[in-house]
Amino acid sequence: MADKEKKLVEAITSRDEDFAQWYTDVVVKAGLVSYSNIKGFIILKPAGYALWENIQRLLDQRFKATGVENVYLPLLIPESLLQKEKDHVEGFAPEVAWVTQGGGEELTERYCVRPTSETLFCDFYKNEIHSYKDLPMVYNQWCSVVRWEKETRPFLRSREFLWQEGHTMHATREDAEKRTQQMLDVYAQFLEEDLAIPVIKGRKTDKEKFAGAEATYTIEAMMHDGRALQSGTSHHFGDGFARAFDITFTGQDNKQHYPFQTSWGLSTRLIGAMIMVHGDDSGLVVPPRIAPVQVMVIPIQQKKEGVLEAADRLCLSLKAAGIAARLDDSDKSPGFKFSEQEMRGVPLRVEIGPKDLEAGKCVFVRRDTREKVECALNEAPEKAGMLLEDIQTALLASAREHLRTCTFTAKNWEEFTEAFRETRGFVKAMWCGDVACEEKIKEELSVTSRCMPFEQEQLAETCVCCGRPAKKMVVWGRSY
Amino acid sequence: MADKEKKLVEAITSRDEDFAQWYTDVVVKAGLVSYSNIKGFIILKPAGYALWENIQRLLDQRFKATGVENVYLPLLIPESLLQKEKDHVEGFAPEVAWVTQGGGEELTERYCVRPTSETLFCDFYKNEIHSYKDLPMVYNQWCSVVRWEKETRPFLRSREFLWQEGHTMHATREDAEKRTQQMLDVYAQFLEEDLAIPVIKGRKTDKEKFAGAEATYTIEAMMHDGRALQSGTSHHFGDGFARAFDITFTGQDNKQHYPFQTSWGLSTRLIGAMIMVHGDDSGLVVPPRIAPVQVMVIPIQQKKEGVLEAADRLCLSLKAAGIAARLDDSDKSPGFKFSEQEMRGVPLRVEIGPKDLEAGKCVFVRRDTREKVECALNEAPEKAGMLLEDIQTALLASAREHLRTCTFTAKNWEEFTEAFRETRGFVKAMWCGDVACEEKIKEELSVTSRCMPFEQEQLAETCVCCGRPAKKMVVWGRSY
Repeated sequence: MADKEKKLVEAITSRDEDFAQWYTDVVVKAGLVSYSNIKGFIILKPAGYALWENIQRLLDQRFKATGVENVYLPLLIPESLLQKEKDHVEGFAPEVAWVTQGGGEELTERYCVRPTSETLFCDFYKNEIHSYKDLPMVYNQWCSVVRWEKETRPFLRSREFLWQEGHTMHATREDAEKRTQQMLDVYAQFLEEDLAIPVIKGRKTDKEKFAGAEATYTIEAMMHDGRALQSGTSHHFGDGFARAFDITFTGQDNKQHYPFQTSWGLSTRLIGAMIMVHGDDSGLVVPPRIAPVQVMVIPIQQKKEGVLEAADRLCLSLKAAGIAARLDDSDKSPGFKFSEQEMRGVPLRVEIGPKDLEAGKCVFVRRDTREKVECALNEAPEKAGMLLEDIQTALLASAREHLRTCTFTAKNWEEFTEAFRETRGFVKAMWCGDVACEEKIKEELSVTSRCMPFEQEQLAETCVCCGRPAKKMVVWGRSY
Repeated sequence: MADKEKKLVEAITSRDEDFAQWYTDVVVKAGLVSYSNIKGFIILKPAGYALWENIQRLLDQRFKATGVENVYLPLLIPESLLQKEKDHVEGFAPEVAWVTQGGGEELTERYCVRPTSETLFCDFYKNEIHSYKDLPMVYNQWCSVVRWEKETRPFLRSREFLWQEGHTMHATREDAEKRTQQMLDVYAQFLEEDLAIPVIKGRKTDKEKFAGAEATYTIEAMMHDGRALQSGTSHHFGDGFARAFDITFTGQDNKQHYPFQTSWGLSTRLIGAMIMVHGDDSGLVVPPRIAPVQVMVIPIQQKKEGVLEAADRLCLSLKAAGIAARLDDSDKSPGFKFSEQEMRGVPLRVEIGPKDLEAGKCVFVRRDTREKVECALNEAPEKAGMLLEDIQTALLASAREHLRTCTFTAKNWEEFTEAFRETRGFVKAMWCGDVACEEKIKEELSVTSRCMPFEQEQLAETCVCCGRPAKKMVVWGRSY
C-alpha cells in the first residue's frame, strides 16, 4: 500500500516546472479522462462526466430562467446546407468529418458531422417562422460536435467535444444584440459564481470573430500559467444567415422582413479552465458548487469499534443537510485516502477516529488551504456548509488576485514587448483597429488579441504597434 | 381565430380510422417533432425534447440508485474495432454510416458513427480492468446513435435517435445475469410507474436476440392498435466480447479470468410508446409524472377585471406546491386554448372566469376522462395534486385493461391463425423451440415472437405450429 501511495503522489509533475505535463498528469490521475484508440477523441470517465453533468444542470437552470427552450437537431449536415453561407463554410469546411457511405451504399451527397449547427437551425427556423408573433425563438441544444483538429489536448482541444449551442431569432437587430449580450452575461455569472473563475468580457476583433458573425463577444479567463482560455462566446449574426437561407417573417407593418440571429456556446473546455485555474501540485481543486463530491468522510483506524459506524452516521448527517458527502470505507490507508481525495479535488474532507469519537468531534481539512478545523459532531453539517461557502469564495478571490496581478499595461511598443518578455499574463494596450498591426503583433510576439473589453480605458492616444491614433483598448495574451 | 381552431382539430385523423396517420398527425400537431431535410433524421422540438429530458431525469435517478455511473465515449468507431466480435459486426455493419474523410483528407481507416457502443466499451474496459477488485464496472452513457434504416417513422424508427446504453463488466456469470435482469426490472418499473405503460417481461428467442448476445431480455408493450413495441432490452453477453477483445482480470485465486458483460438500452422510442398507448382523437395524453406541463391554467373572459390576476395567482399557488403549472394568457380564445392543451396532452387544465372568481372557485378538467371538478381556490393545489395522481393511476389501469383484453391464447394452429385473423393483439401459444416454426409463423401470419415471458403458463403440451412437444410459452404479435 505504501508503494501505491507514493506512486499516486510521485506521478504528478510540479505545476511550476512543466505546466503542460502537470495538466496531462492531473486529468488522468484524477480519473477525469482516458485516451481512446482514436486520435483526439477522449473518454470522459465518471469523475469527468459528473463535472459536465453539474455544469449542464447549473447552466441549464440559468438558461431556462431567461426563457431558453431545449431542442435536438440532427447530427449530420448535408454539404449543400453547410455551403449556403459563404463565410461560414470557409471557416468550417476544412475541419469537418464527412460521412460518405450509409446502409452499405455510397451517398449521393456528403454529410458532415456537425461542427456547429447554425445552418441546421436556419433550415429549421425557415419552416417555423412566419409572423412577428413567432418571434423571438430562443432554442438551445446539448450535444457533441466534431472538428478535425490537428493538435489535440483533453478538454482544451479535441476532435469531438460536448457543448451547448444556443440559436435564436429575433424581429429586430436590437433584440438580437440584447440576447447576444444577455447570454454572455449568463456565461460570465456562471463562471464567476459556480466555477469561481473571473473573466474579462469583451468583443473579438474582426480577425478573431466567428465565421459568419457580425460580432463575436467572448469571456476570457486567465489560467495559472498566465495564458488565456476563451471560455465562452456569443455571436450576433445580423440577418446574414437569414438572407442566405431566405428566412422571412411578416412584420406588424404587414411587410416581409429578415429576422436577426444569435448563437452562443460553451463546452467541456470549461473543465480544462477549472483545472488550470484552481489545481495545484496535489491535483485538482474543484469549486464546491460544481463538485460531484463536496465532502469525503475518511475514518481513521476504521477497524476500531464504532469508528466506521460513526463515520457512516456523520456522512448521513451531511447528506441530510443537502451536502454531497461520500464515505471512503475502502481498506486503503488513511494516507492513501487523503492523497486520493486531494488528487480528485474534493473540496473538503472530514476525518474521524477513535479519539475524535471519544471527544464527540471530527476534523475538517480544507482542500484549498489545508487548514484543519475541529468541530463537534452534532455541528458538523452546519460547519461543512459554511466551510464549503468559504472555499468557494476563497477560490474566486484567489483567481481574481491572480488575474489582477498578472495583467499589465503598455503604452508603447517597448513596454509592450518587454511585458511579454519579462512576464506571463495579459497586457492591455491601445490599438488602431488595423488588422495589419494584429498580424504583426502575432508574428513577432506570438500573442493574439483576446478581446476589446467592454470596460475600456484610455491608456494612450496611439496604437501600441504603429503609433497611429488608437481606437480601442485591447487585451493581448498567449492563448490555449 | 375561429378558422385556426377548426384547423387544429380537423387536422387529426381519427385513431380508429387510420392509426398510422393519426400517429403522424399527433407527433406534428402536438409540436413534438419537425421533419428535417435529411431522410430519417427528425428534429425534437421543445415539447418533444422536454419529454425526453423528463424521461432522462427519472430514469437516471433510478440508474444511480443501483450504482450506475455515467461516462461518455467517442461518437466514432474504427472499422477494425467494430469487426472484433463476429456476430456483432454481422448484425450492425449493414446499417452503419461511415466517415471516410476528415480535415480535408481521406482517412486511412473508415470510422462508423456508433450504432451502439459495445466495442468501444470493451476497448475502454481492457485498460481499466486488471483485478477482481476493479469489478463490477457499471457504466452508462446518454448519447445519440445512428442506424441507417430504410423505413423511418418519428420516434419509432429513425436514422438517428437519442438513447442511453449501459455497459457493465462482472467477475462472474451470476453477477452479470443478476445485473441484466435487475436493469430489465428498472425499465419495467419505470414504464409502469412513470409512463403508466404495463409491460410483459421475458426473454427473446435466439432468432430475435441482439447481435453478439447470449441472452436478450425485453419489455414488450401493447399499443392501442394491438401491436407490440419492444420498449427496452437488456443483454447478457457472457464472456464472448471479453474473449474477442482479450479482456482479463486477476481473480482472488490469482489466476487470469475473462469478465462477464451486459448491456441495456432504452431510447426516444418510449415517447412513441407513450403516444400510442395513451393518446386519443384529441391528441396526446401525457402521464402526469413525465408531463413537462402538468396543469394549464386557462382564464375565461380574461379581459374582465381581476381574471388574469386571479389566474396568475392560481398558477403561482400550484407552482408553490411543486406542480408544473403554466398560465396561458395569450390572446387566443378559451376554446382554442382548450384544443391546444388537449392536443399537447397536458393532463389537467383549470379554468377560471369572472363567475368562478366571484364564487372563490375554479374548475379542473381532466384530460383523460374530461371530467369536470369544481374546487375552492384555496384548495386548488391540493386538489390538483390528487387529480394528477388519479390520472396517473387511471392511465395505467386503462392500459392494463387494454393489454389484458387484447391478449389471447391459442392451443393449436387453428386457434392461432383465427386469433390473428379475427383480433388485434397478442397471442400466447406454446412453442417447440425450433427456429423453423418461428420462421413459418412469421411468413404465414406476419407476426413475430415478442418474447418468452418470465411468467410461463402451460397452455398445451405441443407446439402451436408443428405439433411436436412444446418447450416454452411464447407471446406472439405484430410489431413496430
